[in-house]
Amino acid sequence: MSEAKTWVLASHNQGKIKEIADLLAPFGIQLQSAADFSLPEPEETEPDFAGNAILKARAASEATGLPALADDSGLCVTALDGAPGIYSARWAGEPRDFGVAMRRVHDELEQCGSADRSAAFVCVLALAFSDGAVRTFEGRVSGEIVWPPRGDGGFGYDPVFRPEGESRVFAEMSREEKAGMSHRARALARLVAEEFGDD
Amino acid sequence: MSEAKTWVLASHNQGKIKEIADLLAPFGIQLQSAADFSLPEPEETEPDFAGNAILKARAASEATGLPALADDSGLCVTALDGAPGIYSARWAGEPRDFGVAMRRVHDELEQCGSADRSAAFVCVLALAFSDGAVRTFEGRVSGEIVWPPRGDGGFGYDPVFRPEGESRVFAEMSREEKAGMSHRARALARLVAEEFGDD
Repeated sequence: MSEAKTWVLASHNQGKIKEIADLLAPFGIQLQSAADFSLPEPEETEPDFAGNAILKARAASEATGLPALADDSGLCVTALDGAPGIYSARWAGEPRDFGVAMRRVHDELEQCGSADRSAAFVCVLALAFSDGAVRTFEGRVSGEIVWPPRGDGGFGYDPVFRPEGESRVFAEMSREEKAGMSHRARALARLVAEEFGDD
Repeated sequence: MSEAKTWVLASHNQGKIKEIADLLAPFGIQLQSAADFSLPEPEETEPDFAGNAILKARAASEATGLPALADDSGLCVTALDGAPGIYSARWAGEPRDFGVAMRRVHDELEQCGSADRSAAFVCVLALAFSDGAVRTFEGRVSGEIVWPPRGDGGFGYDPVFRPEGESRVFAEMSREEKAGMSHRARALARLVAEEFGDD
């Protein structure tokens, strides 16, 4: 269990900051946002989610002297050897168009010749301390890629991802329904369990 | 993982309701308070924390048709065979005076002849569903009873309880410090892990 009671979240997304701040409050953690500091935004040069999350958390912790939390996440498609993975956002181009990214997933699946449509959304949270210690917490939700895209909720690849045991894709669920089973929720659940549970 | 997205908390404590509601929000749960319903307040007739928590959660779930959460907690002193335990609040009398309750713990420890001052704060959360299913989540913090009482923070038995590995009693800590290691925080961490984590 951490001694320090103020953590920094390496994110500028106000909705995400508020949500995680509220989640951590019962455990005595006060969360500050990256916006409260002049935080560096390191390039995501690592080959996996954990590496990039650690890189961002370390940079924020070194800049502030406080424990820092960062996340990295994406969609991993089995038949594409885990792609788009850490490139999930980058496949959408600039400015981001996930219609393009979803089409690319579909096209590559058609070309690869495999009938396997299994995939997983993965989120890794990294918690870095100023003494260099770091811990990671992974959450994942398994499912499969459908085509064509369905629904108008969610964002990113949600219109083509159907979680295991569900008939609907993420984009056909309410925000609350998706939240209860999302990869980010599961990573947060693991963080709470390991940082604030017994032992 | 639960399908229903609205839970009831069998409590009228607004602070507790807000805190737990904020904690559960990232998992897609909307928490309603007992004040939103005419909830029965069953007598706590069971012999242990889990029994009383289940009794309160079941009553709230049956009254509302929604999943319901309730807690029961107290101080268990080893040399007193677990007393005051489920009677922790009742030892303080009516109107509640925890000075009286702490004195009674001290006096009974002196009389019992044991040098063992170990004790634990225990909290059990029960989550009951309208189909009769129920799950419980226990959190505990081990420590020992000190005398005389110290500090002016906290409430209940906090002035005589020193958690393991700490030099201060709970009543000498800030609200945030205590929150990070409390029995209730640990029960909540377990609930989050088991209800919203990976299987």
